[in-house]
Amino acid sequence: MPKGPVPAQYHDILNSTGLAHVATIGPDGRPQSNPVWFAWDGEHVLLSFTESKKKYQNLLKNPAIALSITDPANPLRYIEIRGKLESSELDEGNALIDGIATKYTGAPWAWGQPGEVRLKGVIAVES
Amino acid sequence: MPKGPVPAQYHDILNSTGLAHVATIGPDGRPQSNPVWFAWDGEHVLLSFTESKKKYQNLLKNPAIALSITDPANPLRYIEIRGKLESSELDEGNALIDGIATKYTGAPWAWGQPGEVRLKGVIAVES
Repeated sequence: MPKGPVPAQYHDILNSTGLAHVATIGPDGRPQSNPVWFAWDGEHVLLSFTESKKKYQNLLKNPAIALSITDPANPLRYIEIRGKLESSELDEGNALIDGIATKYTGAPWAWGQPGEVRLKGVIAVES
Repeated sequence: MPKGPVPAQYHDILNSTGLAHVATIGPDGRPQSNPVWFAWDGEHVLLSFTESKKKYQNLLKNPAIALSITDPANPLRYIEIRGKLESSELDEGNALIDGIATKYTGAPWAWGQPGEVRLKGVIAVES
């Protein structure tokens, strides 16, 4: 795995509507894998969580994360990113989840539960 | 995660040409994630490796594995399988890799390197 930021020739995948399959380590020390929607700010992968999400709880205990994303236009082409949860904060005004939902569905997030609090997780890319 | 075998209503995903995103633990104790072709024998997930493959080397040291597979017909539907590498053996006559390649491309495996030895990895489903 090359260290450092994501090479420019893969930015199209990061701007695509491919799903990111997120690998985290569970409380039992074993791997877990889930597909998620994601955003890309040109440097970080941004994930939307609710506080109770298992993935988020895993990352609070062990911030190491890997994501694999397949090019929707060519399933033989993919990118793997390894990094860590750098920070998480309140998703003010649901800006992130609305942006992500708009990317994938064309419309803001419409599946929120009453009282749902969304968090913005910032993933630092290490390799 | 429900324990035990995969419920019948998800068998269509296991028989589909969706990719399995495989999470393993690397030598540094951190997660890795890669999309792979897979087969399903009705009970186990079957993966094809070469001996030098990082994923395979990871599993020899730590057999814990998770796989997430999205329904190609509906990206909001997916299955996560957690389990372990139960055994690996020589893929006699390339039977597994030819079967997998035929599933995904309609034709037997045609990308082998000269002298390539393929292994058949049997993943036991735990939850």
